Order: sequence, then structure tokens, then C-alpha cells
Amino acid sequence: MKKERITPRGENYSQWYLDVIREADLAENSIVRGCMVIKPNGYALWEKIQENLGRMIKETGHRNVYFPIFIPKSLLNKEAEHVEGFAKESAVVTHHRLKLNSRKELMVDPASRLEEEVIVRPTSETIMYDSFARWVTSYRDLPILINQWSNIVRWEMRTRLFLRTSEFLWQEGHTAHATHDEAEEEALKMLKVYKDFVEEYMAVPLISGEKSEGEKFPGALRTYTIEAMMQDCKALQAGTSHNLGDNFAKAFDITYLDKNNEKKYVWQTSWGASTRLIGALIMTHSDDRGLVLPPKMSETQVVIIPIWKTQEERKSVEKVCSKIESDLQKEGISTSTDYRDYLTPGFKFNDWEKKGIPVRIEIGPKDVEKKKAVVCRRDTNEKKSVEFKNIPKNVKNLMEDIQSDMFKKAKNFLNDNTHEIENFEDFKDFFKNKRGFVKAFWNQSKESEGEIKYATGASSRCLIGEGNGKCIFTGKPAKQKWVFGIGY
Amino acid sequence: MKKERITPRGENYSQWYLDVIREADLAENSIVRGCMVIKPNGYALWEKIQENLGRMIKETGHRNVYFPIFIPKSLLNKEAEHVEGFAKESAVVTHHRLKLNSRKELMVDPASRLEEEVIVRPTSETIMYDSFARWVTSYRDLPILINQWSNIVRWEMRTRLFLRTSEFLWQEGHTAHATHDEAEEEALKMLKVYKDFVEEYMAVPLISGEKSEGEKFPGALRTYTIEAMMQDCKALQAGTSHNLGDNFAKAFDITYLDKNNEKKYVWQTSWGASTRLIGALIMTHSDDRGLVLPPKMSETQVVIIPIWKTQEERKSVEKVCSKIESDLQKEGISTSTDYRDYLTPGFKFNDWEKKGIPVRIEIGPKDVEKKKAVVCRRDTNEKKSVEFKNIPKNVKNLMEDIQSDMFKKAKNFLNDNTHEIENFEDFKDFFKNKRGFVKAFWNQSKESEGEIKYATGASSRCLIGEGNGKCIFTGKPAKQKWVFGIGY
Repeated sequence: MKKERITPRGENYSQWYLDVIREADLAENSIVRGCMVIKPNGYALWEKIQENLGRMIKETGHRNVYFPIFIPKSLLNKEAEHVEGFAKESAVVTHHRLKLNSRKELMVDPASRLEEEVIVRPTSETIMYDSFARWVTSYRDLPILINQWSNIVRWEMRTRLFLRTSEFLWQEGHTAHATHDEAEEEALKMLKVYKDFVEEYMAVPLISGEKSEGEKFPGALRTYTIEAMMQDCKALQAGTSHNLGDNFAKAFDITYLDKNNEKKYVWQTSWGASTRLIGALIMTHSDDRGLVLPPKMSETQVVIIPIWKTQEERKSVEKVCSKIESDLQKEGISTSTDYRDYLTPGFKFNDWEKKGIPVRIEIGPKDVEKKKAVVCRRDTNEKKSVEFKNIPKNVKNLMEDIQSDMFKKAKNFLNDNTHEIENFEDFKDFFKNKRGFVKAFWNQSKESEGEIKYATGASSRCLIGEGNGKCIFTGKPAKQKWVFGIGY
Repeated sequence: MKKERITPRGENYSQWYLDVIREADLAENSIVRGCMVIKPNGYALWEKIQENLGRMIKETGHRNVYFPIFIPKSLLNKEAEHVEGFAKESAVVTHHRLKLNSRKELMVDPASRLEEEVIVRPTSETIMYDSFARWVTSYRDLPILINQWSNIVRWEMRTRLFLRTSEFLWQEGHTAHATHDEAEEEALKMLKVYKDFVEEYMAVPLISGEKSEGEKFPGALRTYTIEAMMQDCKALQAGTSHNLGDNFAKAFDITYLDKNNEKKYVWQTSWGASTRLIGALIMTHSDDRGLVLPPKMSETQVVIIPIWKTQEERKSVEKVCSKIESDLQKEGISTSTDYRDYLTPGFKFNDWEKKGIPVRIEIGPKDVEKKKAVVCRRDTNEKKSVEFKNIPKNVKNLMEDIQSDMFKKAKNFLNDNTHEIENFEDFKDFFKNKRGFVKAFWNQSKESEGEIKYATGASSRCLIGEGNGKCIFTGKPAKQKWVFGIGY
């Protein structure tokens, strides 16, 4: 096996990101343009998201479903803003058969042309709401609270593993309610579920709030977002929750009879988070030695490395390793021992470091004598010698410490790189030389957002509060405080 | 809510199946031809499969991955038998953009034509093995043991909910090994995992064994299958495991250097089970009153129905219901209480019966007085009056009894409808009037299989043993005993 170098962040941040992914063996580009192969180590991260975020989505009353991957062209066309938003990046299925031609080459069978083309879902509002219209008749059928884990295709020209790929995995929640206020409450509730999950499990600190008119979801009344700051100080939208109002209800004629037997449109929400979260996880915590995982996201939390020279040493060392592994597992800590005998301990240290495993325990013949082992934290590289009998308790505490220290470190980074700016000259100057979050008052409009972006590269990330100040762009009195940043 | 009738099995078996699905609210046809919408009750069954079969797949050393949904046409073309098997039912993506024409109608943008068409995966051998070729270099990289949960598209002309749909969900395992024997062992191991899961959790008895040449997977050396018998005595293939030999290794050039530094081809397996299992579950156990679920497959195992007239009664009844619900949950039995106050108890009984919930508990004011409740089994309709304090233990035992009784009942049905037949006249007679499994000696060949199918509608299901007998078709001496049946 060859040892590959990870490009330092300071040298080339983009290359560093790709190197971390390669060396942790998370994913790779596939032969299909813009689509990725998520390898076992990468998919284990997605399974942690599915397990924990999935549980939280169920605990808030949602049930899982599965809708078709194909959306008839005519269905996409029903909501005007929505179609504008997705038509340009649709993978279109036009035929349903291949055949071999006379030269034994595989070709599309022209006789199999579909009467109506279907697209591969870029999101499922249209296909789901076509069903909702049949499912809902009375107020007793409301609310509808469903969620889907699935693959999504948005044909992208410039792709980047996990962050922007033509196919990605996600969950999409879709709900229907009797009133606007109930839908609004739902949209905010799910935003909080995302925030809780990402901060508590992924240890990624967030800002959250409403998106501007220019940045909201095509077809939504309001979009709420969670935004994270990467180590290059750029912003990453990590999940969104939309109050769809009655826009889709009107487009798809989703109505119910209320208690007074009056016909009403439903009010809806949709919300999604994707494999992009894995990109956020990587870029928040990793360092120049590779991936760093918070314990709650790591399939393997502790790796034990036996060190020996003679076969006699090997026997006694491996016996201890096996005992410690089982002690740790009894404490609910997922642990494995690297018994590969064709690799040096040094190679193994490096290998598991690159894979981000939170804790490494090194056990050699001298450790066995002294009944002590070296316990090493991945996040800080700190090493401690710990008596065998104290290892389970010690490592258990370490799991909590690492989880909270990683969050604190990232939170400090976010705070240190967030600035208040009051006039547009300073704002432009800032983004000319730096990256980070800028808090500023702003009287939002699509036009000014476009001009700000053109002048600085920055866009509004979200609305974070009310107050009294001056609009960063016009200088006029403004009441809304926004966060700006350069986005992924 | 209107009460829909379920067509009795004896009257129209096909309609009965669809009625059971509709009344249990499992799934429905979508607006997209041949694709289904899996509703929350139906998806909960798939989640039980994912949870339990998924755990068993991990316990046998496999890790989950995700590969692209799109397969370039040229990649499909690499293995000759494989392409023959799947080209005819491929959804072909030819363009990557829609646009609005001058009349504001959505149309395919001709400028977005793909250089090479891609198909939506009908199975992932080709796209995965393209990666395997890069992943494997040394014997130390073997075995590769991966699994994928995903959606699959095979364009079907005649579809039927869960049993045959143009899109379905499945898991597909793919492995690569150093030797033929290791691959053979793996294929058989995973066949056993399927059999264990389906019999133990779904309570569906199976026969299993090797498929004939005519029925094996396109590109495989050998295919093994699990076959179930539905209540109309037709056979349903519920899962398959393939020893792929080195066919794909040669087509995709997947080689490794062995310990002696010699270049060798890998040996491979693939194995899959799909949402079709849900069809098998429904058709094995359900009755003329609707769905019947074994406890291990039911998201809700017990439903409690409070019965009351006055508000005072309601208060005391609901208090008891809540206590019993929490007692049952402490025993690990998933329980819910139907508090809907706009439905009669009779409507609720029927409603939960149709949904297949294994146990119903009825509690009215008189039950509260006597400290007893009526406990009713869905599978046998048997009712017992049980003292409140004994309910947790009683229901816990009932869960085991129902699970094993349902399996026994289905096993008896399978045995009762399996026959030994020794000559072709009797064989033809049998399938003229009846359905069922027929055990017969057979010297398999693709030609005779075709003739048998033409004459009787029956095909070989699998090879079940060796012995000495006469070939059912030719009358010549034969050593292999096969099961025949009419398949779904």
C-alpha cells in the first residue's frame, strides 16, 4: 500500500478536501459524469445520519413512504416557479428499451419512445402532491406528515464530492395542514430538528433563520435554513425547511372540507437534508492529517493497535487487546482491533488517523507489563497513559469530552469569523480580502441581492433578527439583520 | 369513511390481493405507468425487512455502499448474457434539460442531448464491477463484501403492486473472492440468510435450491433461489443468490496478484431481495377479512380499543387503556390505543383487522369493573378474557404463539400442496386442473424446460436433491429431483 500525502489546508483548500476524502476512503468519482460512488466508510456516515435524524423525524410524528422516481413532464409543469427552478437540470427519460443493432452494438430502440417523457426526480413535491389531492378530503385526513429517504438527480455541470453531485441521497419531508399557522409551526419545528441533529451529533455549529426572496425554494412562501461555516470561512447551506403556503395546494387542487363543511385549500411544508451534510462534517472538523470524526458520527469509536516483535509478545499483547475491546464494547463503545500483521504500527496509526477514528489505544509488550496503555485522542493528538482497569471509564468520558470539545472549537471558529459591518465600503473591502460571516442590516430585495453578489461574491445566508440600523446596501433605515457570506 | 368490501379469495384471487392492499392502506398505483406509491403502512413493512435482513447482512461481514443510479450504455454491454437479459426493459436517459417553448409548454431541450445515453440501473453488476477493477490489486484486497439498498427500474408491461413494478426497492449484495470455492460458499451463505430471515421473521416457509440453466441470472454460473407458495398454490421467487463465477471478472478485467505474485481473476457473487417480499407476505397469510401480519413484521403489534358511552365511562376506560398500553410497551410490545372518538368500536375492530395488527384488546366499562379485558388474535379470530394484571405476560406469549402458528399453518399448506409425480401425462393432468408444487426427477435442458412450460404453464422452481428416478419429460434415467410450479 502506498502512503499518499494530504495537501495542507493552507496550501490548497480544495485539494485538501479531496485528499481527506480519498485517504479516509469515503467516496470517489464514478465513471458516470457528476455521480459519486459512496464507499463503505462514507456510507457509514450516511447511516449515522439516517439512524439519528431518522429517529428524530419519526419522534416528531412523521412516517416514511416511497414515491416513484419518475415525474411526468406535465406534472412538473403545474407550479410555475417550481418548474423554472428545476427544468434546467432534469435528467430526461425518453425511451424504455435498448436493442442490439446489426453490428451487435447496443442502441436505443426508436420504437420504444415514451408518449410523455418522464424526468428523474429533482425533488418530489409534484409527484407527492398529485397523490395528496386524492388522499385528503376531510379535515380528519389532516395533517399528513410523511418523509422519504431517496436518491435525487439534478444534472450539475460543476460537481464536487458530497457538496454538489448530479445524483445525491437525501430525505425529504412533506406535510399538509389545515391552516397557515400550523404549516408555519411545522416548518420551524423541522428546522429545529435539523439544528439539534447537526449540532448534537455532527458537532457542527449553525446559524439559522429565514432565507431572502432571492434565495428561497422555487414555489415556497418562506424558506428557513441552517448554515454552517467551513474552515475556509465559506458558508454551507446544510438543510432547508419550507413553508409552501397554499401555492402547491392551488396548483394541485388539494382541498378538504372543514368542520363547517366548507372547502378549503391545505397549507404545506417540505424540508430536506442530504449527503451534503457529510461534506459539512468533513470540512468543519478535519485537519491536515485527515478526517476527524465526532464520536457520535463514528461507526468505530475506538481502534486498538497491538504492537509486538516476537510471537510470544504477540500472544500476550493480543490477549490484552481482546480483553480491552470486550470491556469497551460492554460500555457501548464500538471498538475494533487492527490485527493486520503485514503492516507496521506506524502505518496503522497513520491509517486510522486519516480515517478520523476518535480514539486510538496502543498496546505493546511494555504496556502489558505495566498494565497500562497509551490512549490517544484524534482531535487534539493528546496522549495519556491509562491503567488497563481504568480504560473503560476513561474512554467513556473521553467520548463525551471529544464530542463537546469538537463542537466548542468549531463554535469558536464560527464566532471568531463572524463580523458586524455597517456600510457597504467596509463590506466590499471585507469580502475582497477575507471570508467569513458578516452581520448587517439590510432591506432585502432581489435586485439589491443581485448587486451585492456581483460586487462581492457574497449572498445573504439568512435573517437572524430584528432591530434598528441602516441598510448595508442603500444606507436607508432598516429593521432586519442578516448574515452574509460566500457560499458553497 | 366508507367501508369497502374485500373480494373473497375464492371469488377472485387477484382482486382479493388488490383489495387487501387497498384496505390495509399499503400502496397504490401512481400516475407514472407501472410505478407504485408505497404508503406509510406498506413502507413500515419494508423498514422491518431493512432492519432485520439488513442486520443479518451486516452480521455476515458486509458493509453498505451507494453506487450511481445511471449506467452508461457501453458498460451494460460488457457482459454478453447480462446485456441480453436487461436491454429490453431499460429506462433510457437521453437528455439533461427541459425548457419552455414559445407557447410556454415544457419540452426536452434538443441541445442537451447526452453524448452517451445512460440507463437507470436494472441491477448494479456493471457499474459496481467497473469500480471493483480499480479497487482490487492484491489478494489482501479480497474479499470485497458490499451491499446496497436502492431503487431499481425494469420497464415492465404488465405490473402488479409489490410483485412486479417498473420501479421497485431492493438490496443487492456484491462480493469478490480469491477462489471459486469461496464464492460458492458465499452464495450459499447468503441464500441461507434469506431463508432464515423469511422463515423466522415473515413466517413464510420456503423451498430452496439451485435454478435451472433456463431460469438462472443472466451472466451467472449458478443461481440459487428461495421459493414460496402463495395461497393460490402458485410459486413466488422471493430472493436469489448468484455464483457469478469469473464471468464478470473477465468482462471487467478484475484481477489480483496472489501470494505467489501471479495474476488471477476474482470470483464473484451477487444476491438480492426486493419489495416483492411484501407481496409474498401478504399472499401467504392474509384472509378474506384482510391483511394478517406476523408479530415480528408488524410495526404495531397490539391495538387497544376503548369502548364507552358516557363521558364518565370514557374517563375510567381510557385511564385503564393508558396503563395497559404502557405495561405492554415495558415488555417491548409495540402498542397503540385508538382514541378516535368519531368512530364506533365495530368500525375500529374492522379497521385494525384489515390492517393485520396481530392482537386487539377491547376494554369497556364492564371490563373495567371486572378488571378483565377481551384479547383477540387476528390470525385465528380467537377471543379470550384476560385479567388486567396478566395481560403483559399473556400477550407476550401470544406474540410467540402467533408467530409460530402462522408459520406452521403456512408450512402445512405448502406440504399439503406439494406432490410427487413420476410421468409427464400425470404432470400435465395435474397442472391442467390444479396448482401446487410438483416434485419430479428431471434431466434439465433449456429445450425441455421450454416444452414443459409450453405444455403446462409450469416451470422448474429449483433443484432440491439427488437420487435415482426417471426424467419427467424424457422418461430416461435421471439423478436430479426438481420442484416445478406455476410462477408469479
